[in-house]
Amino acid sequence: MCLDTIMISGTAGRNRKTVYLDNAASTPVDDAVIVEMIPYLKEQYGNPSSIHRFGRDTGRALQLARRRVADLIGARPREIIFTSGGTEADNLAIKGAALQARKQDPERRCIITSSIEHDAILEPCKALESSGFDIVYLPVTADGLVRPSDLKDTISKKAGRVALVSIMYANNEVGSIQPVAELASIAHAAGALFHTDAVQAAGKIPVDVNNAQVDLMSISSHKINGPKGTGALYIRHGVMLHPLIHGGGQEFLVRSGTENVHGIVGFGKACELAREKIGLYGAVRELRDYMVSKVLGGIAHCRLNGPDDQAKRLPTNAHFTFYGVNGEDMIIKLDEYGFAVSTGSACSVKKQKPSHVLKAMGFSYEEITGSLRITLGLQNTREEIDSLVQALSEIVGELRSLSPFKEKYD
Amino acid sequence: MCLDTIMISGTAGRNRKTVYLDNAASTPVDDAVIVEMIPYLKEQYGNPSSIHRFGRDTGRALQLARRRVADLIGARPREIIFTSGGTEADNLAIKGAALQARKQDPERRCIITSSIEHDAILEPCKALESSGFDIVYLPVTADGLVRPSDLKDTISKKAGRVALVSIMYANNEVGSIQPVAELASIAHAAGALFHTDAVQAAGKIPVDVNNAQVDLMSISSHKINGPKGTGALYIRHGVMLHPLIHGGGQEFLVRSGTENVHGIVGFGKACELAREKIGLYGAVRELRDYMVSKVLGGIAHCRLNGPDDQAKRLPTNAHFTFYGVNGEDMIIKLDEYGFAVSTGSACSVKKQKPSHVLKAMGFSYEEITGSLRITLGLQNTREEIDSLVQALSEIVGELRSLSPFKEKYD
Repeated sequence: MCLDTIMISGTAGRNRKTVYLDNAASTPVDDAVIVEMIPYLKEQYGNPSSIHRFGRDTGRALQLARRRVADLIGARPREIIFTSGGTEADNLAIKGAALQARKQDPERRCIITSSIEHDAILEPCKALESSGFDIVYLPVTADGLVRPSDLKDTISKKAGRVALVSIMYANNEVGSIQPVAELASIAHAAGALFHTDAVQAAGKIPVDVNNAQVDLMSISSHKINGPKGTGALYIRHGVMLHPLIHGGGQEFLVRSGTENVHGIVGFGKACELAREKIGLYGAVRELRDYMVSKVLGGIAHCRLNGPDDQAKRLPTNAHFTFYGVNGEDMIIKLDEYGFAVSTGSACSVKKQKPSHVLKAMGFSYEEITGSLRITLGLQNTREEIDSLVQALSEIVGELRSLSPFKEKYD
Repeated sequence: MCLDTIMISGTAGRNRKTVYLDNAASTPVDDAVIVEMIPYLKEQYGNPSSIHRFGRDTGRALQLARRRVADLIGARPREIIFTSGGTEADNLAIKGAALQARKQDPERRCIITSSIEHDAILEPCKALESSGFDIVYLPVTADGLVRPSDLKDTISKKAGRVALVSIMYANNEVGSIQPVAELASIAHAAGALFHTDAVQAAGKIPVDVNNAQVDLMSISSHKINGPKGTGALYIRHGVMLHPLIHGGGQEFLVRSGTENVHGIVGFGKACELAREKIGLYGAVRELRDYMVSKVLGGIAHCRLNGPDDQAKRLPTNAHFTFYGVNGEDMIIKLDEYGFAVSTGSACSVKKQKPSHVLKAMGFSYEEITGSLRITLGLQNTREEIDSLVQALSEIVGELRSLSPFKEKYD
């Protein structure tokens, strides 16, 4: 196909031999997505708010994309608000619900979230805290799971004062899938809204806003083989939010700004493909399990972190601790060997800080520094995993041999 | 070139015969911009916050783009914050400066802006107004120009209480270029910050943050032949803003969220091209002047709106009133004839409202409803203008013949 010729003649190409195993950080954009985007970069450049043909054409493209995104999560198109990504969607949900609640009932100043949320949730919460909101961070189990009983207890202590409960659908570091429907029903019983950050879950496991009983749900395009720079917030019909970005009134007066048309078109196509391909994650889960058993069987002093119950874990996620080794050293070495992996969240520039997720799960300093996250995508193969495990085994051995405590790991 | 083959085989193509004269609403993306973007959709899909090769490669691409954007407006790369577009940049400037000022000095609760700003300025101001800020909307002349004396008077009345002055660089409807440097120096003398929305001006006339003496400047990619969904806020070194979107701390802790890498790469290239092509706007100005003289000479009961002094008007803008005709009817007819133009701002979904810009300029209801904005780009030709004027002449004649007041315009 013609598109490939451009790719090869482009500035890229150096990464051809690197095996990408950091799919929780970002994913390759599907070729079919790019093909649908290009006309909206090239000839369909109208502003969707314009009333002439150029505007109407891009307006129709937004409609189709909105329907495709809605279909992925069982929503209605009118309930989808396009944003610049998962982080903006999370900010709109948290701040939008908090400020709206304060307008309606100044007593509802409490937000309950978990201690293992992404920074896109924790930081807006901190910002609200400094302007008078009361934020409660629920603890988690050693597996990285929120206990519904903890939410119930907190809500009863804060009776009538909880505006919003926000618990992520699946954790970005250890892949733990939270009991969202159960948590949402507890929130609703107390008259609070329920939001979930489903950025890691949507498109990889079946996610449905009605089954999950959520009022607000954030999703992101670039985590599901769509382009970066676009995402969406699902807002259940009837739920009101204070806007974060004011202006021309686009996105049903909730989120202003000329729409990122080509990005939204790509996101729509990525959602359609994700829905078609959801069944393929069974094979990804098998590949992940194969990798886990090879790592645990082949490398000493190593453990798998996150839920033991594999039904409570994303099919794409594996998270290990290699005792006596520094995770960042492993990443750099693996990079030299041609493998791209991560220690934890890539969506943060504050790399020096130890993972707040692992801390909340009760990990020791050594367990945190020795951690490594490997996240699979549909494109990964058994051969790639075999070569990764081989490299990992050599690297862990080499790094341990340089450690002052090397006797401990002989 | 190969890219063209894709375009032709894509879903677009219906607009080939339509002449696009709505370049203030959005612009065609330059082919060279698309070519630079594609590798960052295809192979360079790393998250710039990742420390492996994929992340470092996209991180470098952001650096280059940041330098190119900075170069267009005479800034330093570290002073450029990428946003999802002009509207978000405006929101970050207005709310960010207002909330930061309130933190530092609760007395500084006044913001001065003009009555002809874009909704991306006016709506954030209204939102702040409802949370205790004092907003002053300066009047304008009949030409659509802010008088420095009005700013001086207002500032002296609000002595010590002005946090921010925000006046657009050039108006999006009538193209009037404001005396930004003079206004900025008045703001600074009173200890206030100065922001300008330069979305319409940057890339079309020389814009330099130091000559203009501004602290904050918003620019947008899709107005200068770059992709939609990306823009930037210039923040002068040392100026602090309260963030609008919190999270992982990207964009120097000012604007969180995984960067829209391919969009930013395209925006950077568009800025580089805009800098190279700024001299070509002399020819655009000549083409615009040719059109204005043909319209005024060939169609009766019609006038040009905006500054008489052509040095105070964007080279791309022409804004007319055709008495006795409805502007939206003209747009629909022109669309049928194959011309895309506008009545005013396309960046708003609230079409039913008469233009607040023309109202502020003192226009009558008839003058507002009969208005038409024609905005040129580098791609437009003399032949296109000739055929537009011919079509416009026929359409105005036809619409007037249907008017109950047709005798008035015989």
